[in-house]
Amino acid sequence: MRIAILGGDGFVGWPTCLHLSAQGHEVHILDNLSRRWIDTELGVQSLTPMDSIQERSRIWKEVTGETIRFHLIDLSREYERLRQWLADHRPDAIVHFAEQRAAPYSMKSDRHKVYTVNNNVNATHNLLAAMVEAGLDAHLVHLGTMGVYGYSSVGAPIPEGYLDVQIDTPSGPRTQEILYPTRPGSVYHMTKSLDQILFQFYAQNDGLRITDLHQGIVWGTHTDQTRRHEQLINRFDYDGDYGTVLNRFLIQAAIDYPLTVHGTGGQTRAFIHIQDSVRCIELALRDAPARGDRVKIFNQMTETHRVRDLAQLVAKLTGAQVKFLPNPRKEADENDLIVKNDQFLALGLEPTTLAEGLLSEVVDVARKFAHRIDRTRVPAVSAWTRDIARRVERDPEGKALKSVS
Amino acid sequence: MRIAILGGDGFVGWPTCLHLSAQGHEVHILDNLSRRWIDTELGVQSLTPMDSIQERSRIWKEVTGETIRFHLIDLSREYERLRQWLADHRPDAIVHFAEQRAAPYSMKSDRHKVYTVNNNVNATHNLLAAMVEAGLDAHLVHLGTMGVYGYSSVGAPIPEGYLDVQIDTPSGPRTQEILYPTRPGSVYHMTKSLDQILFQFYAQNDGLRITDLHQGIVWGTHTDQTRRHEQLINRFDYDGDYGTVLNRFLIQAAIDYPLTVHGTGGQTRAFIHIQDSVRCIELALRDAPARGDRVKIFNQMTETHRVRDLAQLVAKLTGAQVKFLPNPRKEADENDLIVKNDQFLALGLEPTTLAEGLLSEVVDVARKFAHRIDRTRVPAVSAWTRDIARRVERDPEGKALKSVS
Repeated sequence: MRIAILGGDGFVGWPTCLHLSAQGHEVHILDNLSRRWIDTELGVQSLTPMDSIQERSRIWKEVTGETIRFHLIDLSREYERLRQWLADHRPDAIVHFAEQRAAPYSMKSDRHKVYTVNNNVNATHNLLAAMVEAGLDAHLVHLGTMGVYGYSSVGAPIPEGYLDVQIDTPSGPRTQEILYPTRPGSVYHMTKSLDQILFQFYAQNDGLRITDLHQGIVWGTHTDQTRRHEQLINRFDYDGDYGTVLNRFLIQAAIDYPLTVHGTGGQTRAFIHIQDSVRCIELALRDAPARGDRVKIFNQMTETHRVRDLAQLVAKLTGAQVKFLPNPRKEADENDLIVKNDQFLALGLEPTTLAEGLLSEVVDVARKFAHRIDRTRVPAVSAWTRDIARRVERDPEGKALKSVS
Repeated sequence: MRIAILGGDGFVGWPTCLHLSAQGHEVHILDNLSRRWIDTELGVQSLTPMDSIQERSRIWKEVTGETIRFHLIDLSREYERLRQWLADHRPDAIVHFAEQRAAPYSMKSDRHKVYTVNNNVNATHNLLAAMVEAGLDAHLVHLGTMGVYGYSSVGAPIPEGYLDVQIDTPSGPRTQEILYPTRPGSVYHMTKSLDQILFQFYAQNDGLRITDLHQGIVWGTHTDQTRRHEQLINRFDYDGDYGTVLNRFLIQAAIDYPLTVHGTGGQTRAFIHIQDSVRCIELALRDAPARGDRVKIFNQMTETHRVRDLAQLVAKLTGAQVKFLPNPRKEADENDLIVKNDQFLALGLEPTTLAEGLLSEVVDVARKFAHRIDRTRVPAVSAWTRDIARRVERDPEGKALKSVS
């Protein structure tokens, strides 16, 4: 297949490109490289030394003989170029990672909120409008997030996108299937909730074939392909905005930094290893909906864990300390989370769950590049509201928290 | 109160400004005048000769002694100016009309889809982010649409925004209140569905006090205030993109143009007279939610009618012919619609329902300005999909339709 990978220079995008290229697909990356620009803005860098996308692609060609093509296009601002590219190249499938993906970054300031909504909504909508205009019947696979469900459980396992509900009508109760009522917890997560409505409309009005993957928190760094050459290494974020929870614990352990748990650490989250993430995208691509079908939604995760349990696990493995800090997010202290992922299991996914070996691999990578870490950038400082920001500022060490717990 | 009316130069915005100014409120209009630009783009004009916003405001001052201030700001593109304006003026309430509001315009081409999403989503989100950043506790009243509900009835009357559903859980069925599952029928309607998610998030995360008015199709042209001087006259759209169904029938009747019913005319829609529309906004402003409340949602409509029944009513009143044409929209041929509007009734709304006198008044206005009508711009030509466009083009007179019915 000819596959366009939007945002193919990113953390999951790049290993996806390699995975699909290794399987013989013709891979085209469309990316505005905004993630590299944000590194510059924030004054941080990937823990791993990451080459330019052009250089990475050259190495891939050298190692495998396969070509990955790169096209510098800004989906949210260059509608006409996007449409023309789609009309010219007519990909069979499109994998869409091209959105600002960090919740803390999206809550950093009003400017970051405005950027995230503008960038993400326009990128997705431009893509949909361009597909229709180009008369393209490509299968669109979009990376969503488990965060669209919210974490105030209805008391039942979270289904894959759709929920059966009973509604009282004058002629008696009636069962109906609805999109799971969304309850996003940050501006970033909200944009993925908006995407769902865009997809629903374009599937219904224009018959676009769309799969939406509600992904959990990705951990790990290597995949089978990124291991093949040191210059194929994946990006690896450790800073308070882009670093995600399990990977951050592993990095903190590697540099003798206490594992920073926010609040009580009672938040339960869904996780997936990056190797499984790229495998899921392969499986989703094979299982395309038919024209006229509703949007297909998968939960792309393999296990759930409570944050403080993960901290304890990593502490036990590495000897690191655990430190409880005030939570900069507005969220419930504790939540349960049971998630269905039957569809990917049925398609043949064999989950890579938390194993000491894989955890150690991440710590090893972090130790190797520990000299590149700016320890001052490790704390997560983006607060969800001004009140929370003031509270964190008054008590950065979480002393009040400790006296309570 | 000091009230900012965003989009205060528009069809409902302008009479709202007059209504609130007449009640002694300090009214500020923020508008980018995009609706006037779209008239220029489409090469059509309001049936009624409409003065500049500055001139209208000058006349209002002359007639009543009240001042309406105008500020040229583009909400979707000038975030910084918007935030500064809010910080400087600190309005007590904000009424938000500032979105592209025609479904056919939003479906006209890919460019129009892209414009509508970009303009509407960014306008609303910029406003929310700016309110938070300015630390403003203003009550935000937003004009939404009945179209967010969709017209595939669940078999029960449409409630006001929220729906009680029963969900099966391992510990038995559980009742929960959710946002009514949205099913928008055009890109324009979709943007109002996206707004709902933005409101939910900002009410929850930042405690913004928000009321969302799901408005039906507005008909009529005069209100008590626009009648006070001929230069205070409201805009009145007759073209296929911005003209809405009942007003279009009345205009068509006035110029001896057949009443154009699309499809079978079996679509049932919700309606409200413009006088009631401005009254509802007044009532909503008085009934502000408290900080921390969920978004308050009203159905702003007074009656429902089937489109072909309206055509027959106008035909009977005026002697006009009724003509059935192919439907450029993708929608069900026939639908029922029962809508709850108990909240506005409880607040004291006395509905102005279809009455011959008011219908005749619209016909009289249309006759008075009939010389300003370009008859070639009356047909609705924006098709929802290419297939529909081709079908309409093959059979513009709806001959196939007639042989079926």
